[in-house]
Amino acid sequence: MTIFTKIINGEIPSYKIAENEHFYAFLDIFPLVKGHVLVICKTETDKFFDVSDELLKEWLLFAKPIAKAVERVVPCNRIGVSVVGLEVPHAHMHLIPINSADDMNFSRSKLKLSVEEFKEIQTQIIAAL
Amino acid sequence: MTIFTKIINGEIPSYKIAENEHFYAFLDIFPLVKGHVLVICKTETDKFFDVSDELLKEWLLFAKPIAKAVERVVPCNRIGVSVVGLEVPHAHMHLIPINSADDMNFSRSKLKLSVEEFKEIQTQIIAAL
Repeated sequence: MTIFTKIINGEIPSYKIAENEHFYAFLDIFPLVKGHVLVICKTETDKFFDVSDELLKEWLLFAKPIAKAVERVVPCNRIGVSVVGLEVPHAHMHLIPINSADDMNFSRSKLKLSVEEFKEIQTQIIAAL
Repeated sequence: MTIFTKIINGEIPSYKIAENEHFYAFLDIFPLVKGHVLVICKTETDKFFDVSDELLKEWLLFAKPIAKAVERVVPCNRIGVSVVGLEVPHAHMHLIPINSADDMNFSRSKLKLSVEEFKEIQTQIIAAL
């Protein structure tokens, strides 16, 4: 069972943003910038393009209102999208509010946020949905 | 008119990989790695999440066989996906064969390929489609 399935099941806590039958969105606990959200599918598939056509069709539609909400809350030029997937073998998509391409550079050091900061941004994004 | 619309119209040449009614895929002329493909929609929309729901639903399905073809041709761990969009105001998605997260770091210097190298990888990807 992947760490993401444990998050979906509530065995590991997360700052949940949204959920439906097929997808789950929550704050990345190692954010590149404030408002960095992860969108995962509920089925365990390692590689993104091995996800079923049915889910791939719905993926960006699920992500769209979340991206719009993050864009309203976090000062940024736009929302960047990134699928890397080298660390957790469970397809996931990063939604990252960006002002420069370097905001999507996964080689750079991650932000350290307090529980209060995570909760504040979570509340703001949910309110903007 | 964006540079991408000119590419779609054939006013600017490109190493085309695939095309349908709504989308066009071609080799990125400034690749991060060999096999770096751009997928664009034929309508001019600046921000990715402003693209219509109808097209967002089809986007990943159009990209999927291309990603699979690149993965068969280029030695890599998997295909990474990136939407940045700070340079050309016409929604586009990068498909990048990656072995490490740094292969998706847009801050690093781009690869210089010869026309022959572009044509060779183009032919290989199309053959693997």
